[in-house]
Amino acid sequence: MSIFEARESEIRGYCRVYPVVFDTASNAVQVDDQGKEYIDFFAGAGVLNFGHNNERMKRAVIDYIESNGVTHSLDMHSTAKRTFMERFTKTILEPRDMPHKMQFMGPTGTNSVEAALKIARRVTKRTQIVAFTHGFHGMTLGALACTANQVFRAASGVPLQHVSHFPFGCEKTCSGCTMGCGNGVIEQMRSLYSDTSSGLQPPAAFLVETIQAEGGVNVASKEWLQSLAALAKELGSLLIIDDIQVGCGRTGSFFSFDGMDIDPDIVCLAKGIGGWGTPMAMNLVKPEVDKHWNPGEHTGTFRGQGLSFVAGSEAIGYFETPELMDEVKVKGKIMLDAIAPLEKKYDQVQIRGRGMLYGIDVGDGATAKAIVAACFDDGLLVSACGTGGRVIKLIPPLTIPQDQLESALATLVKHTEKVMGGAA
Amino acid sequence: MSIFEARESEIRGYCRVYPVVFDTASNAVQVDDQGKEYIDFFAGAGVLNFGHNNERMKRAVIDYIESNGVTHSLDMHSTAKRTFMERFTKTILEPRDMPHKMQFMGPTGTNSVEAALKIARRVTKRTQIVAFTHGFHGMTLGALACTANQVFRAASGVPLQHVSHFPFGCEKTCSGCTMGCGNGVIEQMRSLYSDTSSGLQPPAAFLVETIQAEGGVNVASKEWLQSLAALAKELGSLLIIDDIQVGCGRTGSFFSFDGMDIDPDIVCLAKGIGGWGTPMAMNLVKPEVDKHWNPGEHTGTFRGQGLSFVAGSEAIGYFETPELMDEVKVKGKIMLDAIAPLEKKYDQVQIRGRGMLYGIDVGDGATAKAIVAACFDDGLLVSACGTGGRVIKLIPPLTIPQDQLESALATLVKHTEKVMGGAA
Amino acid sequence: MSIFEARESEIRGYCRVYPVVFDTASNAVQVDDQGKEYIDFFAGAGVLNFGHNNERMKRAVIDYIESNGVTHSLDMHSTAKRTFMERFTKTILEPRDMPHKMQFMGPTGTNSVEAALKIARRVTKRTQIVAFTHGFHGMTLGALACTANQVFRAASGVPLQHVSHFPFGCEKTCSGCTMGCGNGVIEQMRSLYSDTSSGLQPPAAFLVETIQAEGGVNVASKEWLQSLAALAKELGSLLIIDDIQVGCGRTGSFFSFDGMDIDPDIVCLAKGIGGWGTPMAMNLVKPEVDKHWNPGEHTGTFRGQGLSFVAGSEAIGYFETPELMDEVKVKGKIMLDAIAPLEKKYDQVQIRGRGMLYGIDVGDGATAKAIVAACFDDGLLVSACGTGGRVIKLIPPLTIPQDQLESALATLVKHTEKVMGGAA
Amino acid sequence: MSIFEARESEIRGYCRVYPVVFDTASNAVQVDDQGKEYIDFFAGAGVLNFGHNNERMKRAVIDYIESNGVTHSLDMHSTAKRTFMERFTKTILEPRDMPHKMQFMGPTGTNSVEAALKIARRVTKRTQIVAFTHGFHGMTLGALACTANQVFRAASGVPLQHVSHFPFGCEKTCSGCTMGCGNGVIEQMRSLYSDTSSGLQPPAAFLVETIQAEGGVNVASKEWLQSLAALAKELGSLLIIDDIQVGCGRTGSFFSFDGMDIDPDIVCLAKGIGGWGTPMAMNLVKPEVDKHWNPGEHTGTFRGQGLSFVAGSEAIGYFETPELMDEVKVKGKIMLDAIAPLEKKYDQVQIRGRGMLYGIDVGDGATAKAIVAACFDDGLLVSACGTGGRVIKLIPPLTIPQDQLESALATLVKHTEKVMGGAA
Repeated sequence: MSIFEARESEIRGYCRVYPVVFDTASNAVQVDDQGKEYIDFFAGAGVLNFGHNNERMKRAVIDYIESNGVTHSLDMHSTAKRTFMERFTKTILEPRDMPHKMQFMGPTGTNSVEAALKIARRVTKRTQIVAFTHGFHGMTLGALACTANQVFRAASGVPLQHVSHFPFGCEKTCSGCTMGCGNGVIEQMRSLYSDTSSGLQPPAAFLVETIQAEGGVNVASKEWLQSLAALAKELGSLLIIDDIQVGCGRTGSFFSFDGMDIDPDIVCLAKGIGGWGTPMAMNLVKPEVDKHWNPGEHTGTFRGQGLSFVAGSEAIGYFETPELMDEVKVKGKIMLDAIAPLEKKYDQVQIRGRGMLYGIDVGDGATAKAIVAACFDDGLLVSACGTGGRVIKLIPPLTIPQDQLESALATLVKHTEKVMGGAA
Repeated sequence: MSIFEARESEIRGYCRVYPVVFDTASNAVQVDDQGKEYIDFFAGAGVLNFGHNNERMKRAVIDYIESNGVTHSLDMHSTAKRTFMERFTKTILEPRDMPHKMQFMGPTGTNSVEAALKIARRVTKRTQIVAFTHGFHGMTLGALACTANQVFRAASGVPLQHVSHFPFGCEKTCSGCTMGCGNGVIEQMRSLYSDTSSGLQPPAAFLVETIQAEGGVNVASKEWLQSLAALAKELGSLLIIDDIQVGCGRTGSFFSFDGMDIDPDIVCLAKGIGGWGTPMAMNLVKPEVDKHWNPGEHTGTFRGQGLSFVAGSEAIGYFETPELMDEVKVKGKIMLDAIAPLEKKYDQVQIRGRGMLYGIDVGDGATAKAIVAACFDDGLLVSACGTGGRVIKLIPPLTIPQDQLESALATLVKHTEKVMGGAA
Repeated sequence: MSIFEARESEIRGYCRVYPVVFDTASNAVQVDDQGKEYIDFFAGAGVLNFGHNNERMKRAVIDYIESNGVTHSLDMHSTAKRTFMERFTKTILEPRDMPHKMQFMGPTGTNSVEAALKIARRVTKRTQIVAFTHGFHGMTLGALACTANQVFRAASGVPLQHVSHFPFGCEKTCSGCTMGCGNGVIEQMRSLYSDTSSGLQPPAAFLVETIQAEGGVNVASKEWLQSLAALAKELGSLLIIDDIQVGCGRTGSFFSFDGMDIDPDIVCLAKGIGGWGTPMAMNLVKPEVDKHWNPGEHTGTFRGQGLSFVAGSEAIGYFETPELMDEVKVKGKIMLDAIAPLEKKYDQVQIRGRGMLYGIDVGDGATAKAIVAACFDDGLLVSACGTGGRVIKLIPPLTIPQDQLESALATLVKHTEKVMGGAA
Repeated sequence: MSIFEARESEIRGYCRVYPVVFDTASNAVQVDDQGKEYIDFFAGAGVLNFGHNNERMKRAVIDYIESNGVTHSLDMHSTAKRTFMERFTKTILEPRDMPHKMQFMGPTGTNSVEAALKIARRVTKRTQIVAFTHGFHGMTLGALACTANQVFRAASGVPLQHVSHFPFGCEKTCSGCTMGCGNGVIEQMRSLYSDTSSGLQPPAAFLVETIQAEGGVNVASKEWLQSLAALAKELGSLLIIDDIQVGCGRTGSFFSFDGMDIDPDIVCLAKGIGGWGTPMAMNLVKPEVDKHWNPGEHTGTFRGQGLSFVAGSEAIGYFETPELMDEVKVKGKIMLDAIAPLEKKYDQVQIRGRGMLYGIDVGDGATAKAIVAACFDDGLLVSACGTGGRVIKLIPPLTIPQDQLESALATLVKHTEKVMGGAA
C-alpha cells in the first residue's frame, strides 16, 4: 500500500483521475516517476499560464533565494513586493486607467473572494450578494455560499446564507434550457430589486465570472455583462469580477473583461498571478471602496510571499510586449479549429470558450469521464468540469509549443470520437 | 509617494508598525533596504521556526527547482509529496501511535480550520461549534465565526453563526477576571449540554488552541485540556486542536499538546509546517472521521505545493534527532529568566508562555505599542497581541543563536523599563 | 389628550386612517361614539365575512356563555370543539374528499403559517421555502421571512433567512412589469431546481396565496397555480395555500382554490374561520404530513377558543345551503360592474379581483390615500393595500345588504373620480 | 372513532393527559360531558386567574354583545379599548409611576415576545438576545429561539439564531447543579460582554421570566434580578420581563416583579390579561423605546379584541381593591403548608414557588406523570412541567374557594405519597 493510500485523506481527488506519481515538469510536459511523459492540458487548474518551471521565473527565483531574499513577510514592505507592485501598476493598471488599489490576502482564491465580500458588504451596508448559476468562487464558508455546485455546497455543514443565485448570462443557450438566461434575467432582477414588495433588497454586490471555467466553460456575452454592470450601478451595488481562473492572459489579454467596456469595483485574482505555481492572491479594489478598510482587519499569514512576487514580476513581463498575447490568439484559433467539427458531428456536443480556454460539453459526465481516462492513458492530461462533470476543459499553458498543442488536440479528438462513436 | 502608499490597500498593517522595506533575511536577522539589521522576535507570525532562509531548506529547494521538480500539483501525487508524507508519518505520527490521515487544502490556516469544521459537522450531524474567548482561528467566514476578537469579527458584514464562545481555561488567572475560567467552565458546559432544557445542544466540536498566541499568549492548563477532552468524548463531540501557530516545535516538542495525554480527533497545522515560509496547510484527521469525506469535496488550487513539501521535509529532520528540541528548552528558560523580573517589578505585568513563546502582558495597548516602537528603533522586531494589543509577544526562530537571543532580550527589557518607568 | 395619544404605542395604524372611536357595529355598519354611521368595506381586514355581530352567531355565543360553556381549553377536548370539527368535516372536507387533519394553534394567521413551515421542513428534511413577490404571510420571524413587503421586513432586526421569493403568477400583467410572471417563472424554477449546479436546492414547500389580498389584490391564474402544484409534486416539495384572507367564502366558495383542481398539502386558515371576529387559526394538513408531528410540539395557549368554535360552527352553516355563496356571485358582479368603468376611464387604473374581493390599483399611494380619506369623511370605510399603498381594497361583509353595497360603490366611484379628475 | 381521533392533528397534547370531553366550567371546577367534576389546578395554563366564566366578566361580556359592541377592530379606536386602557393606566401604571406605552398585537404570548425582540433590536442596533436556561417564550421562530426546551426547538426546522442562553438565577440550587447559577453568572456575563475579544457582543436585550412557570417553576432571586437589571443598564441592553404566565396577580401583586425595585424597559403580557380566557396580548414599552416604532410595522389581525377588552377591564377591577391580592397571600400559604412536608419527606423532592404558583419537583418525569394521572382519575387537574416533565405545577384560579383548594391539595399530597411510597 502506498503512503497515499495509507495516510492521505479520502478527500484526495485528482490523483484518482491521474493515478501516477508526478516527478518533474517543464512548460507543457509533466513526467511521472516511471518516466512517462504527459502533455498538460490542465495547467494546474489554470495556474500555470506560463508553463511548469518557466525558465525566466526559475532563474529569477533561484537568484532571489541565493541572495537570501525575504521569503515570507506578511504585509510588511519588501523589495520583492515593491518591484511586483511597481511593475503591475505600470504594465497592467496604468494603461487601463485603473485607479484600483492592490490588496493581498491569504494566497488562495477563496480568501480573495471572502475579502471582496467583506468590503462590499461594509461599503454598501447591505448583506446580500448576487452570484450566478454554475459559478465557482471557493470553498470557505463565505465564498462557498456563492459557489453554485451542490457537490461543494453539501459539505458546508451549515446553511449557506446571504447569497442569491440568478441564471448566468451564457452567450450560447444550452438546448432545453428554460432559465431565461441573457438579458431577460437582467430585466427580471431590475424589476425585483426595484419593487419594495418583492421580498428582495438590492444586493451589496454582483459577483460574476466572465467565463465560468469550473462551471463548464460558460461564456457570458459582452452585452449581458454590460447590462449587469449598468444594473449594479443603478442599484448602488458593487460589481465584483472573479478573474481568478480566466484572468492573467488566458483570454488573450490580461483581464478577461478587457475590451468589454465594463468597470468593476473589485477584481479578484489568484491562480496565475503568482506566475509559476507558488501561491498569491490579490484583489484590485477601487480607492473609494478600499478606503473603508481599517488596517489589519482581514489578515492572512501567507499574504506576503517573496517567491510569488519574484515569479509574478516575471509573469508581468509577458504583458510588456505583445508576443505572448498574439500567440494566444493564434493558438486559440488552432484549438477551436480542431474541436469545432465535434459540435457539428455530434448533436449532444456544444463547444464553448474564448482565448486559450475551451470546453467540450459532451452532454453527460460518464462520456466525459471515459474520454478523460482514454486521453490520460494516451499521455494527455485533461479534466472534466461543469454540472455532473459533462464538459471537458482544455486549458493548456499559454506557452505550449505549437506542435505539442496540435498533437494533443489530435489525441483529444481521436479519443472523443472513439468514445462517442458514429455521429448521433 | 512610495508605491505602497500609492497603490497598496489601506488594510496593510505590519508595514505601519515596521515602516521600512525589508530586503534580505537570514536565520534570526532581517535587513532592510538601507542595510539596517533587525533581530527577528516575530518570525513571520510564528511561521519561521527554523529561521529565514534556513540553509538546509534553501539547498533542498534550489536543487528541487534546478531539477524541474513539480512546483504545483493540486492533489495529484508527486514525489515531493510522497517524501514529505513518508517522513512525517515515520517521524511524527508513528512514534505517537497517531493513526491520523493527512488532508491538504488551500495553504492558509483559515482553510484548514474551515475544512475541520466541515467534516466535524458532517460526522456529528450537528452544526454548533464551541470555541473560546480570545481564540484566533482565521478570517474566512466559517473560521472567523470561531475567532473571538471583535476587530476581526466586525469586518464580516454578516452575522457570525453556529459558534458559541466559552471562557478559555487559562493556567494563570488575570487579575480582576470573573469569567470563571478553568474547570468551572467545563462543569458549566457539562451541565448546559446535558440539560435538554438549557437552550443549548451538544456541539459538533470543541475547537481550541493549547496556547492562544494571537489572543495574548494565554496558556491552557493541562488539567483543563484533559477535562475538555473528556467532556468532548462524553458529548460525542470532536476535539479539534488548532496547532497552527504553536505546533511544529514551538513548545519544545512537535505538537503543543505532546505529553498532555489528550487525543484530538483533528489537528490543524499551517504556518510552520511548510518549513521556511512557503505556504502549506494540513489537517491530521482520525480515519473514522476522515472516511466521511467524499473525493474532491473541499478543494483548493494551491493544496499541492512542491517547494513546501521539500522544505517541510527538511523541517521534519529537526525532529529526527533531539538537538533542536533540547535547545528550545534551554533557550526558553533563557527567555523566561530574562523577562520574569518584569512581573515582579510591575504589578500590572503578567508573564505567560511555554517553550520559546512568551507574552509580556503590560496591561494596556498604549504601553505595549510604545515598547514595540522603541524596540524597532533599536533593531528588534517584536509585535503586540491580545485584547487591545496589550501583550508583547516573543516568538523568535527556534534556531536563533544564543547570543542574539540574549542581546535581544536585554533590548526588550531595557525598553520595557524605560517605557514603564519605576515600579508601580 | 386622549388615552390613545397618551398611552397607546406609536405603532398604532388604522386609527390614524379612521380617526374616530368606534362604539357599536351591526352587519356592514359601524357607528362611532358620536353616532356617525359608516358602511364597512373593510370587514376587519377580511375577518367579518358574515358581518359584525351576526345575529345567528350572537345568539349562539350568548347561549353558550350563559350555560357556562368552556371558554378556553388549549387542546383539551370540549363539546364546542367537537361540534365545530364535526360540522367542518361534514360540510367542508368530506364533499371535497379532503382527508386533511385539523390542527389548531395560537389563533393568529402568522402562527398558522409558522406551524405549516415547521412541519413542511420536517417532512421534507429541507429548509428553504419558496414564497412569492407581494405575498403576505405574517409578522413573526418565520412567517415574516415569507412576507414580501419591505416595510414589514425592515422591522425584523435580524436577517430573514431560508426563504426565496419568485415572481407571483398574476392573471393580469401590470404595465411595465418585467418580472416574467406567469408560466415563465414556473419553467425558470423547474430549471433552477433541477440543476445541481444552480446554487439552489428544491424547497421544502411553495407557500402561495391564490389572491394576494394585502399584496394588492393580485389574482393568480388557474393555469399558473396548476403548474405550480405540478412543479411542487415533481420536486417533492409541499404545496401550502395560505387561504387566511381569501378563504371562508370570500371568493364565492369556501376555499379560494375550489374548482381549480389543485390538491394542497396544507391549507392555512384564520381570520374568517372563527366566524364573527373572535380569533381562531387552523391548518388543514394531509395525514401523511401530519403524522410527523409529535404531541405538543407546537403549542399556543389560546388554541382552544370556545366562543370561536361556537361562532365558527354557525359560520359553517352558511356553507350547508347555497344561498350566501349564490349571493356572493351576484354581489361580486355588482362590485365589478360599478368599478370596471374606472379602468376604462383612467389609463393608470387597473381593476383586479374575484368573488367579493376587488382592488382598484390607482397607480400610486398618494392618490389612493386621498380617495380613502374622502370616502371615510363620506361614511365609507375602505383601506389601501399593495406596494406603497396604491391599491384600494374592497372587501365588504358577504352579508352586506344590496342597497348598502350599491350606495357604497357609488360613494367610492364618486370620490375616485373627484380625486383623479378628468380621464388621463 | 371520535372526531378527534379521526380528524384532529397528531400534535394534540393535553387531551391525551385528560382523555375526556369537557363541557362546562365555573370558577375552579370543570365538568366533562359525562357530568364528572374536576377541580382545576391548571387554570388554562395560567390564563384563568379569575376562574372559568367569572360572573362579573360574564355579565359584562353578555351586555356588551347584546348592545352590539364592536367585537373586532384591529388597531382602530373603540370605546371598549378606551375603557380598558384608561382603567389599566389608572390602576396599574400610574400607582407604579410607569410611563410605559401599551402595544397590542396578535393575541398570543409568542407574538408579544416577537414584537419586543423587534423593537429591542431596532433601538439598540444589535441582534443578539440573551435568554436563560429553562425559559419559555413561545413557538414562533423569533420567540422559539429564546425558548430553551429542546422538545420545542427541535421542531423549528431551521437553525435558531441570534439568541444566547445563560444559566437562570434560581433562588434555590438544584442538587447536583453545576451551572454556577446566581450572581456568578451575572459576573461571567459582565466579563464576557466587557471583553472585546470574548467572541460575544453586548446583547440588544436580556429576556427573562421572574418565575419560569413552564420551565419548572424556577424562581429567580430578587438579588439576581437586580444584578441582571444593573448589567443590562451598564451594557446599554434592554431588560424585557416576560410576565405572560406569572403576571396579572398570580404572585400576589399585579406584576411578578412588584417590590423588586427593577425597572424593565418592556413587559410582555398575555394569558391572564384578557380576563377570562379570550385572547389578548399587550406589551408595556417605555416611551423612549416605543417611539422607534413606525405606524403599522408589526401588525396582527386580532389585535383589537372587544370581548377581551371588556373582560380585561373587569379583571383590572380586582386590583382596585386589596381583597383578592390579600386572598392570594393567604391561599398561597395554605398551598405551601400543604406541600412543604413532601420536601422534607422525600430527598428527591424540591418545592419551589411564590404567590399561588408552586411546583413540586419530584425528580423525574415518570413519577410526575403517574401522580398527574392518579389526580386526574380522582377529579383533580394538575399538569407536569420542567425538563422531562419532572415538576408538578400547581396554578389554581386565584378565586378558588378555600375548601376546594384544601381538598385538592389533600388529593394531590395523597397521590404523591402513594406514587412515591415510603420516604427515601
